[in-house]
Amino acid sequence: MLFLVRMDVNLPVDMPAEEAASIKATEKAYSQELQKDGRWADIWRVVGEYANYSVFDVASNDELHELLSGLPLFPYMDIDVIPLAKHPSSIK
Amino acid sequence: MLFLVRMDVNLPVDMPAEEAASIKATEKAYSQELQKDGRWADIWRVVGEYANYSVFDVASNDELHELLSGLPLFPYMDIDVIPLAKHPSSIK
Amino acid sequence: MLFLVRMDVNLPVDMPAEEAASIKATEKAYSQELQKDGRWADIWRVVGEYANYSVFDVASNDELHELLSGLPLFPYMDIDVIPLAKHPSSIK
Amino acid sequence: MLFLVRMDVNLPVDMPAEEAASIKATEKAYSQELQKDGRWADIWRVVGEYANYSVFDVASNDELHELLSGLPLFPYMDIDVIPLAKHPSSIK
Amino acid sequence: MLFLVRMDVNLPVDMPAEEAASIKATEKAYSQELQKDGRWADIWRVVGEYANYSVFDVASNDELHELLSGLPLFPYMDIDVIPLAKHPSSIK
Amino acid sequence: MLFLVRMDVNLPVDMPAEEAASIKATEKAYSQELQKDGRWADIWRVVGEYANYSVFDVASNDELHELLSGLPLFPYMDIDVIPLAKHPSSIK
Amino acid sequence: MLFLVRMDVNLPVDMPAEEAASIKATEKAYSQELQKDGRWADIWRVVGEYANYSVFDVASNDELHELLSGLPLFPYMDIDVIPLAKHPSSIK
Amino acid sequence: MLFLVRMDVNLPVDMPAEEAASIKATEKAYSQELQKDGRWADIWRVVGEYANYSVFDVASNDELHELLSGLPLFPYMDIDVIPLAKHPSSIK
Amino acid sequence: MLFLVRMDVNLPVDMPAEEAASIKATEKAYSQELQKDGRWADIWRVVGEYANYSVFDVASNDELHELLSGLPLFPYMDIDVIPLAKHPSSIK
Amino acid sequence: MLFLVRMDVNLPVDMPAEEAASIKATEKAYSQELQKDGRWADIWRVVGEYANYSVFDVASNDELHELLSGLPLFPYMDIDVIPLAKHPSSIK
Repeated sequence: MLFLVRMDVNLPVDMPAEEAASIKATEKAYSQELQKDGRWADIWRVVGEYANYSVFDVASNDELHELLSGLPLFPYMDIDVIPLAKHPSSIK
Repeated sequence: MLFLVRMDVNLPVDMPAEEAASIKATEKAYSQELQKDGRWADIWRVVGEYANYSVFDVASNDELHELLSGLPLFPYMDIDVIPLAKHPSSIK
Repeated sequence: MLFLVRMDVNLPVDMPAEEAASIKATEKAYSQELQKDGRWADIWRVVGEYANYSVFDVASNDELHELLSGLPLFPYMDIDVIPLAKHPSSIK
Repeated sequence: MLFLVRMDVNLPVDMPAEEAASIKATEKAYSQELQKDGRWADIWRVVGEYANYSVFDVASNDELHELLSGLPLFPYMDIDVIPLAKHPSSIK
Repeated sequence: MLFLVRMDVNLPVDMPAEEAASIKATEKAYSQELQKDGRWADIWRVVGEYANYSVFDVASNDELHELLSGLPLFPYMDIDVIPLAKHPSSIK
Repeated sequence: MLFLVRMDVNLPVDMPAEEAASIKATEKAYSQELQKDGRWADIWRVVGEYANYSVFDVASNDELHELLSGLPLFPYMDIDVIPLAKHPSSIK
Repeated sequence: MLFLVRMDVNLPVDMPAEEAASIKATEKAYSQELQKDGRWADIWRVVGEYANYSVFDVASNDELHELLSGLPLFPYMDIDVIPLAKHPSSIK
Repeated sequence: MLFLVRMDVNLPVDMPAEEAASIKATEKAYSQELQKDGRWADIWRVVGEYANYSVFDVASNDELHELLSGLPLFPYMDIDVIPLAKHPSSIK
Repeated sequence: MLFLVRMDVNLPVDMPAEEAASIKATEKAYSQELQKDGRWADIWRVVGEYANYSVFDVASNDELHELLSGLPLFPYMDIDVIPLAKHPSSIK
Repeated sequence: MLFLVRMDVNLPVDMPAEEAASIKATEKAYSQELQKDGRWADIWRVVGEYANYSVFDVASNDELHELLSGLPLFPYMDIDVIPLAKHPSSIK
């Protein structure tokens, strides 16, 4: 089941550089783990913004919330979740 | 080059059914043509709304505008275009 | 799987009374059918507005879209879909 | 009498972890007390957000305000209150 | 129990003058009836707009919805309902 | 002359409790003084929010600004002022 | 007593040209009458929009509403009224 | 003196094709005249929308309003005007 | 050439009183200087808000930006600039 | 390929003056470098705001994101990116 998710990251500007770098590294590993198992199906950077659009392929709402609220950057994020369905014109 | 595009369709409620059906059919053929040649990379239905999110893979802004403004439903659409870049965490 | 759905109905003010009454009757029957089989778990009227909040219990996004886009009043509705997950404080 | 209430929680990111955990624990106990006596009729997590939708069943506006403003997390919340009425299609 | 209600009226500009005058007369009688029995506690005109703020004193949400949805101008209104509680500073 | 005024209070969450209590006490006394002399005609709590709607009865805009900008909580408030006129349906 | 008023005019695009011209002429005369007696203290065109900002100098809210609701273009206007007070830095 | 102007065109969907084509042709000629004399310094299409961003180089606000309100499509446009000044980093 | 300018001031609530008083005094002197030479044509307080509407009469956009960005309170301000033109109904 | 980009800068008001001056100097040099090589085609100051509109001429979305996210002021910016295409009326 697919969801489009927009994530805007707002790290405090006075966060020490190392702390920021470490959270980002953990976030990257967390994301790549989920990308490998297919649940994080796509991730793109929004040009000009510290934000991304991602597509998640999960079995339920609860699973999606677990993945999103488990993001290391979750406390610094504004997240918008858009449930997707198959489009009648889609050839996939 | 990737763009995320949201299209909200607002057909006049008093449009004759046949006219609506015919435009939708033309739109579907137009879309499937572009899906086959890869420029319309993905299309999903937004749950509960006469709207879709699509991913376009095109060579330039001008090409994207040509594809979008050529949509049979274009006069009835609100369209939002979000340019995408490769995300540093993406494994693709 | 639960979704909170807000539906705002905007019937054209110049729609003939009988036509409006007939669509509303079909809508009511459609809704009550789904309430009986449990997929339309709750429906409340928003005080002062021709709008409702409903809770749907469905197996997937696609099923929810099918139910919502099948509503007789769908062409006259603005619909907002909010995916829900179990709350850690919930005693249910 | 039913109210739909949305609560968005914005804890300061620099709040010490123990302080946050302690407020959350108090909040959970407070909520479960009210769920047991039926006034907090439902609570769901909004997928991807530190927010919930709840249904309250109370005797008056004043009672609802007392319950909400008594929430341990109240100072950190944006709250939206939507009064509900019985829907003419509801089979309950 | 008090509610603050804002009503914005949007009559179609091409509605025949007599029809508009007749609905407004019915609305005025309807309102004054409720003002006499105290349920419509206050009504003020918003300066510069075809809108009013009113205070309703009713026993329940359902009663308020019944009064509002019964307004002759209801189909032409945008209505916002704000539940009120006693303020700790109020001397009333 | 009547004005409807909405006041949203945003006290810093890290303000010491005594300081907050003292400003609130001064605010309450200030408000009750004006309620007694009739210029602060009504004050209601917005259910679920640290906000109020009030009705002021003053002789001029300047007088209203003086009263509002003199509020002890003024620096922590978002204030919206809506000028009111007599409604043609009002029986008062 | 001063008010800043923004007026956005939305004439139906299918209104016959003569009808539009006649309403505009009546509006102009109405406005110039009030400008001569000083109550309509200033009127400026918002560059690029069929809208104006005006300053009114009136004795009360009720008088202002009477003037505004009496505008021939009133049924086609969105009006925003901002009450003004003397600024402490003003040298007037 | 430079202004950035956004123009969104909303032609009625039921406007006869020839009428639309004729207004667009007049608009194109009008625009190209001003581009030749340098006052309409730049015009770009917003990708995916019937809208443009333009830069105008004019001597005054009044001149800009005259040019914009003279656009054949003016009655069908939403226009936003942003006054520009020289940027301290600009090398022009 | 006239511009309507709205300025909302957001001084940090924890700014020492003397510092705030000193910036305000400098701001007042700066403003009154420009009022005397006619470029700051009008300034009014927005009732209930730490904000003003002003009318500036300047020779160019660049001059206006220089005046506004030179305001002592500029770093604490949200500013909205609306270019004005002569209104066809104006008798001035 | 052209993009219109709006950048709003929000430097913390308590940032030491030298630190602010140094970032601004680095930003200026960075911008002028790109202006010289033509990729930063235009930059204008938004009158009255610490913001600019710029036109970028780049080969791809990814290149644009690289340039924007490399801005020294990027962590303090809200950025909006609008892809542009050739306008059918443009004489360039």
